[in-house]
Amino acid sequence: MSLQNRNTLWGSVIADELAKAGVNAVCLAPGSRCTPLTVALADHDAIETYSHLDERSAAFFALGRAKRTGIPTPLVCTSGTAAANFHPAVIESHQSRVPMLLLTADRPRVLQDSGANQTIDQEKLYGDAVRAYRTLPEPDADDRKLRSLRTAIARAVGTTTGVEPGPVHLNVPFEKPLEPVPTDDVPEDFAEEYPRAVYGRDGPFVTVTGGEPALDFDANDVRALMKSIETAHRGLIVTGPESDLTTNALSRLADATGFPVLADPLSGHRFGTHVERVLVCGGYDSYLAAFDHDPDVVLRFGASPTSKTLRQYLRDSGARQFVVDPTGGWREASFTATDLVSADPTRLADALAQRVETTHAGTEWYSRFEQAEQDYWSFIERDATLFEGGLVYDVTTLTPDPSTLFVSNSMPVRDLDRFGPPRSAAITAFGNRGASGIDGITSTALGVKSASDEEPLVLVTGDIAYYHDMNGLLAVSRCDVDVTIVLVNNDGGGIFHLLPIEEFDPPFTEYFNTPHNLDFESTGDLYGLDFERCESREAFRAAYRKSIEGEGTQVIEVCVDGQESHRHRDSLHEKVCEMTEQ
Amino acid sequence: MSLQNRNTLWGSVIADELAKAGVNAVCLAPGSRCTPLTVALADHDAIETYSHLDERSAAFFALGRAKRTGIPTPLVCTSGTAAANFHPAVIESHQSRVPMLLLTADRPRVLQDSGANQTIDQEKLYGDAVRAYRTLPEPDADDRKLRSLRTAIARAVGTTTGVEPGPVHLNVPFEKPLEPVPTDDVPEDFAEEYPRAVYGRDGPFVTVTGGEPALDFDANDVRALMKSIETAHRGLIVTGPESDLTTNALSRLADATGFPVLADPLSGHRFGTHVERVLVCGGYDSYLAAFDHDPDVVLRFGASPTSKTLRQYLRDSGARQFVVDPTGGWREASFTATDLVSADPTRLADALAQRVETTHAGTEWYSRFEQAEQDYWSFIERDATLFEGGLVYDVTTLTPDPSTLFVSNSMPVRDLDRFGPPRSAAITAFGNRGASGIDGITSTALGVKSASDEEPLVLVTGDIAYYHDMNGLLAVSRCDVDVTIVLVNNDGGGIFHLLPIEEFDPPFTEYFNTPHNLDFESTGDLYGLDFERCESREAFRAAYRKSIEGEGTQVIEVCVDGQESHRHRDSLHEKVCEMTEQ
Repeated sequence: MSLQNRNTLWGSVIADELAKAGVNAVCLAPGSRCTPLTVALADHDAIETYSHLDERSAAFFALGRAKRTGIPTPLVCTSGTAAANFHPAVIESHQSRVPMLLLTADRPRVLQDSGANQTIDQEKLYGDAVRAYRTLPEPDADDRKLRSLRTAIARAVGTTTGVEPGPVHLNVPFEKPLEPVPTDDVPEDFAEEYPRAVYGRDGPFVTVTGGEPALDFDANDVRALMKSIETAHRGLIVTGPESDLTTNALSRLADATGFPVLADPLSGHRFGTHVERVLVCGGYDSYLAAFDHDPDVVLRFGASPTSKTLRQYLRDSGARQFVVDPTGGWREASFTATDLVSADPTRLADALAQRVETTHAGTEWYSRFEQAEQDYWSFIERDATLFEGGLVYDVTTLTPDPSTLFVSNSMPVRDLDRFGPPRSAAITAFGNRGASGIDGITSTALGVKSASDEEPLVLVTGDIAYYHDMNGLLAVSRCDVDVTIVLVNNDGGGIFHLLPIEEFDPPFTEYFNTPHNLDFESTGDLYGLDFERCESREAFRAAYRKSIEGEGTQVIEVCVDGQESHRHRDSLHEKVCEMTEQ
Repeated sequence: MSLQNRNTLWGSVIADELAKAGVNAVCLAPGSRCTPLTVALADHDAIETYSHLDERSAAFFALGRAKRTGIPTPLVCTSGTAAANFHPAVIESHQSRVPMLLLTADRPRVLQDSGANQTIDQEKLYGDAVRAYRTLPEPDADDRKLRSLRTAIARAVGTTTGVEPGPVHLNVPFEKPLEPVPTDDVPEDFAEEYPRAVYGRDGPFVTVTGGEPALDFDANDVRALMKSIETAHRGLIVTGPESDLTTNALSRLADATGFPVLADPLSGHRFGTHVERVLVCGGYDSYLAAFDHDPDVVLRFGASPTSKTLRQYLRDSGARQFVVDPTGGWREASFTATDLVSADPTRLADALAQRVETTHAGTEWYSRFEQAEQDYWSFIERDATLFEGGLVYDVTTLTPDPSTLFVSNSMPVRDLDRFGPPRSAAITAFGNRGASGIDGITSTALGVKSASDEEPLVLVTGDIAYYHDMNGLLAVSRCDVDVTIVLVNNDGGGIFHLLPIEEFDPPFTEYFNTPHNLDFESTGDLYGLDFERCESREAFRAAYRKSIEGEGTQVIEVCVDGQESHRHRDSLHEKVCEMTEQ
C-alpha cells in the first residue's frame, strides 16, 4: 500500500480490493483529479491497464471486455463531462446486463456548486441505469472508513456480476494533493495499528456469494410448466440474445422435449458442436412468414429475438409462451407471452430435461423445420450476388473455428440473423442488443478482443457505425488488439430503405439516408491499419481469408448499394416464401 | 400543417410553434423514431437544418450556435442511446448558461420496460442538469392536447433563454406510423373545427416575457454597495467568462468608479473599442503574483476567472468582494467573496455608474496596473520563441477586425488569458468554461461559426481536444462552415506538465501525458480540409494570414514540445515577476 498520503492510501486500497475481488484489467482515461486511482492502478501487478483518450470509446471497450470475461473492467475518469461521455455505454451495460464498474473521480464536496473548474454534479449521473450508486467518503486514514471502502469495492464488484449483471457507479472525491507526495495526514504507525484496514484480507474483504432464483418443482405453477411441455404437440424453444443458457443445457432440453430450437445469432446457440445433435434453426426470418404451422407451446430464453418475422409469428400464434428470465424481467414487447418464469435459465433447462418423462412432440412439426432449414440454406448457398447479406454469409461460413464475430446494430445483426447459417464450430457472436445503438460498436468489439487471446475477431459494421466510433480505432495501437473489420459501406443509413420513409424524398436522402461521402481509406493512415477495398464476393473472400490468417488489423471495405441490397433481400425473401409455401 | 395523421400533425405543430417562438435552426441526427419531427422541421421554410451523424458532436454544435445567437438550436434525435450522447453538451449548456432545447423522440409508453428495440428509460435522462423536463403526451388530434403542446413548446423556448439560460428536455413519444401516410386518426374537419390548436396564433401561442432581477437602490444593502464603491481607495472590476455585462455598461462603470478592469479573455471585455477609453488589463496572470498592492473593494462579474494567479490574488486579499450574478448563483470557489448581489449585471452596472457621485480611487493604484500592463505586453511582444503561448499571441494580434476566436480548454484558454493582449477590435472570444471539458470543442466552434456570417472564426485547439471531437469535423462539409483551425500539437496532455505528477514517471508519460503519435494530416484527407504543418513562428504567421484571407477550412498544425512550452512559460513568468517587483 502507498502510505505517502491519504489519497495514495485510498487509491491503493481501491486497486488492491478490486484485484482481490477478481478484477484483472481497467480502462483509464487521462485526467488530473483521478491521479490517485490512476497511479495505484498503473502500479498494480495483477491489473492490466488500457489507456483511452475518449471516454465514450473507453466505456464501450470496457463493456466489450466484460462481455467476454464476465467480470467488470472498471472505468476511471477525471471529474466533469468526462463522466457524462460514459453514459451511452452505461445504458447498454444496463440493458444488456453486462458487468461495468464506474469509478468517476470527483472534486471534494466543498467545491460542489461553487463554480470551481471541471466541477459538475456527478451524483446519480446515470439515473436509474445503474444497479447501485454511491459517492464515497473523502479519503481519510481512518480504520472504519477504509474498512467501509474495501466493503464498498468488494460489494460493487459483486453487484456488477449478480443475478442481474450491470453497471455500478462509485463517485470518488479527492482533495489535493493528488500526487504521491508525502504529507502528514497518514500517521506513521497507521499501517501497524490497523493492518486489516490497510492491507485487507488474503482474499476479498467481503466475499460476495450470489444465489440464483431456483424453482420449486413441487409447486403448482412449475407442475403446469412441466405438463405443458409434456403434452405439447408442436413445441418450440426460442432463444434470444443474452440467453444465459449454456449450449449443454439447451441440448439436453431440446433432446428431452423434441422441440426445434430457433436460435438468434446472439443467443450463443447458433454456432457450436451441439448443432450436430440438436435441430438449431437460423433461417426462420425468411421462411416463417410463409409457415402454415402454429406452435402450441413456446419456451423463450434471453432477450427479444432480433427477427421481426419471428416476433410476429410468435405474436400471432395461440401458443402458451413461457418467458424464462433470471431476473424476472420482461423482454417481450408483443405482450403475447402467457407465463413469466423467474429462474436461472441453465439450471431450469437442466431440471426440466431431467424431469420430462413423456412427450407428444410431433414428427411432422419437427420435420417441417428440418426441411425448411435445409432448403433455405441450400438456396442461400447458391446465391452469389454481391450484397450486404452475402458478405455476412461469407464472413460466417469462412470464419475459423474457434473465432469471434461482432456484428454492429442496424443491418449487420439482422443480416447475421438471416444469412448466418448454423455451424458446428466454436463461433462466439456478440453485438450490443441492450439498447441497439450504433454508437461504440468498434470499441466494444476491440474490448471483446482484448480478452480473447489468440482467437481471431471479426467485426462486421456499417459505415455510419464505423464513422460514429472512429475514435475507438485508436485502441488498435494503444491497447494492442488485432481484428478484422469488415466495413459494409452503403454511404449512409441503409436501414432506412427498409422503412416506409423511403417513399418520401425529400426528405429521405438528406435526412434519413444521409450520405456522407467519406473516404475511409484515410482512417487506415490515421490509425495504422491495413485498408483494402473489394469489389466482388471473390475479392472479398480472398481478402478476408488473408486477413484472418495474417497479423495486424485490416479494414476490408466493400461498397454496396443499400437500396439494391434491400431489393435483393426482398427478392430472396419472396422466393423463400414461395418455396416454403409449396 | 400536415394533417395526414396525428404524428405529422404533432410534428408540424412543434415545428410551427418553434419557429413562432423565434427558433430559426435545428440540429437533426438521423433516426427512425424522430421521423415526424425530422420531416416537419426539414419542411419548414423558416427553420434551417443541420444534419449530424454523431449526436455528441451535434449537441456541441447546437451549443455553439446558441452561444452566438442567444436562442436555442433545438436538437432532435431518435430513441435510445442517441439521447445519452447529448449528455456532455447538456452539462456544458447548463453550467455555461447557454440555451439548449432537447427534443428526444421516444417509443410510446406502452413499450417502456418491455425489452423493445432501442427503448431505454429517457425520463429525466439528464438529471438536474436541465432547467425543465417533460415527457409530452402521445400525439393526438385533440384540441386541448395541441394547445398544451404549443404552450409547452413556447414555454420551453422561453425557459432556455430565461434569467438563467440553459437546457430544457422535452421527451417526445411517437407510435407508428411515423411517416406522412394518411390514416383516419385526424378527423377530416378537425382543422376547421379547431383552427387555434392546429394553426396556432400569428405569433407565439404564449408570449414569454421574462423579468430580470433588479435592485432597489433605496434598500440598505444596496446603499452599502454604493458606499463601498464611493469610499474605495483601491477598487477593482473583475470580469470572468460569461459576464452578461455589455462593454458599454462596463465602460460607464469603469469611468464612474475609476477602477481598473481585469478582463478574462472569455468575459467579452478583453477586446473592443472600449479598451481605448478604459484600463482593461490582460496580463494579470503573470504580474499579479509579484504585486505588492492589495485591493479594498472588488466588483466581480461572470464566472470564476480562468487565471489561477488572479483567483489566488483575490483570495488572499482582505477586500470586500461583491459577486454579481443574475441568477443568484455562486461561482467563486475560493469562498472569499463577502457579498452576493443577485441582479442583472448590465442594468446594475448602468445604475451604479449613474449614481456614483464621489470616488476615492487612488492614482497610484491605477498607475500601477497601467504600468504593469504596458511593461508586460512590451515584454511579450519582443519574445519570438516558438511555444504554445507565442502562437496564441500571434493568433490574437493578427486576427482581423471583426473576427471570432474559439479557444479549447486545457492550455489554449489559459494561453489566451496570458498571451492575448487587449485589442481595440471587435474580437469575440468563446470557449466552453461551464464544465471546462475538452470534449466537443471543434463542434462548438463550428456551431458558433454557423451563425457568424462572413466574420472569420479561428479555433485554437490542442491535439487531445482535436482528437476527441474529430467526428465534429464532418460539419465542415455537411453544414457548410469554414474556419481556421490552429492545432497546437504537443502529442498528449501538455497541461499535465503544469502539475506535480510530472515528477512521477512512470506513470507520468503513459497515463497522464499519454502520447498518441497520431499524424493528423490524414484528417485533412478524410474531411476535405487543407492541412498545413508549420515549424516556425514566421511560417505560422504566414499560413495563418493566408488562411484567414482565403476560402475553405484550413488546419494549421504546429508541433511543439509541451514540456519546453511549459518551461518557457515559467521562465517568462519569473522574468515578469522580477520586472514587476522592481
